[in-house]
Amino acid sequence: MTRSINRDTQLCMSLSGRPGNFGTRFQNYLYEALDLNYVYKAFTTRDLPAAIGGIRALGIRGCAVSMPFKEACIPLVDSIDDSAAAIASINTIVNNDGHLRAYNTDYIAVRKLIEQHGLATDMLLALRGSGGMAKAVACAFRDAGFKHGHIVARNEATGRALAQTSGFGWVPDMPGVQADLLINVTPIGMEGPEKDQLAFERKDVERSKAVFDVVALPPETPVIKLARSVGKRVVTGAEVIVLQAVEQFVLYTGVRPDDALIERAAEHALG
Amino acid sequence: MTRSINRDTQLCMSLSGRPGNFGTRFQNYLYEALDLNYVYKAFTTRDLPAAIGGIRALGIRGCAVSMPFKEACIPLVDSIDDSAAAIASINTIVNNDGHLRAYNTDYIAVRKLIEQHGLATDMLLALRGSGGMAKAVACAFRDAGFKHGHIVARNEATGRALAQTSGFGWVPDMPGVQADLLINVTPIGMEGPEKDQLAFERKDVERSKAVFDVVALPPETPVIKLARSVGKRVVTGAEVIVLQAVEQFVLYTGVRPDDALIERAAEHALG
Repeated sequence: MTRSINRDTQLCMSLSGRPGNFGTRFQNYLYEALDLNYVYKAFTTRDLPAAIGGIRALGIRGCAVSMPFKEACIPLVDSIDDSAAAIASINTIVNNDGHLRAYNTDYIAVRKLIEQHGLATDMLLALRGSGGMAKAVACAFRDAGFKHGHIVARNEATGRALAQTSGFGWVPDMPGVQADLLINVTPIGMEGPEKDQLAFERKDVERSKAVFDVVALPPETPVIKLARSVGKRVVTGAEVIVLQAVEQFVLYTGVRPDDALIERAAEHALG
Repeated sequence: MTRSINRDTQLCMSLSGRPGNFGTRFQNYLYEALDLNYVYKAFTTRDLPAAIGGIRALGIRGCAVSMPFKEACIPLVDSIDDSAAAIASINTIVNNDGHLRAYNTDYIAVRKLIEQHGLATDMLLALRGSGGMAKAVACAFRDAGFKHGHIVARNEATGRALAQTSGFGWVPDMPGVQADLLINVTPIGMEGPEKDQLAFERKDVERSKAVFDVVALPPETPVIKLARSVGKRVVTGAEVIVLQAVEQFVLYTGVRPDDALIERAAEHALG
């Protein structure tokens, strides 16, 4: 249930190719709990410029941007925050009286998680993936001080490009790569056709010190389950999705919920 | 309270210069009562073409259009229903998979009220007003078979134009006009600076058979109160606003609520 809507209610929304329910459930739960006059709804579109123009013209307060719109939105907004500029990928638009400013709260969330989990910057990393989200994650690690490791991506063009942007090396696959920190930014292990697959092989997990998986659904992917079972430190995609959504919530409302409330909202939205 | 929102929830909305709460309260009440996965919210805009483009691009299901957008929307939609075409004024947009079709449910509502109240078409009418809503009302009376009477409007240009469109005469003011049916389509008697004023003088009301007031707030305007006190038949703006909103609801959802439910929704929204 969400609160009663009136003419002063602010709308926040998401734009994605295949809308999910996480953002809607998470944000509406917090609006309700904090008695904020906001409502949140997921959308998709076949006309991105008109959709963004509509956000501006209708005074829609904020918009989460997901695949496949994270890069295409860039020329449509009015300004870009540092969190998004360096990686040329956005996931959040905030509308201040018709001025649209873009952010990347995935980047912000990964930076925070690196710090919260005390991940040592001298670890060798192996980051699997080379899409928009991989760009945000690789740049977050780079900017946190990580200097050594590889982008692991079968797509040579995007793999090499991301390696160059982030200052890491590029390899098409894991054999031969040594890594202390395994980072998965692909759909491997996600609900769907690849849900039973391991993002990294058992021997790589066993040799590592920590595993960071960006896949949020299910909250425990096969590689996270394996890493836990052999006593490795883990950072889960559920942590990323929740933390990035909290940052969106703060950008939209100006209110930062406390940790206990965030946990209840996350349980509600992921449960 | 409105029902829980998820990715399949349909958004309906309104666009007006000064959003009120009636539509939001009325439509959301019915969604809730009928367990329909819809939510309704009021908007305003400073960029009408982008706002309408956004409705199309975001798949917003329907939009109520009020002052000052009723005529400016016409070139922005894809097709126009008969209810709106003849009067070149719309108050409703329905989005069918990106195709925007415009209607005028004020016109539809007035036609229904003429029939429900059994207003005899041989009555001489005097209709005060010459704006967009006056056009819808005058054309509804014309199309219901009323042939004789006057448009009463100080603005000669719009008054004469509406008289020509609707087939009635034009006079700048009431003195000298005889009328059985007095119709007010101005803000006289509305909450605000003109709330204590009579839309027609006492002697005109006493000489009439019926008074039709389009002002919905308050539900009983001074002229309606007077007409009731001297035993005249009345049709109120509350009836118009509710009936036109019901027609919008049917266009958006395909569901027609029963009379008892409409009454409860109206009490909730006007109360």
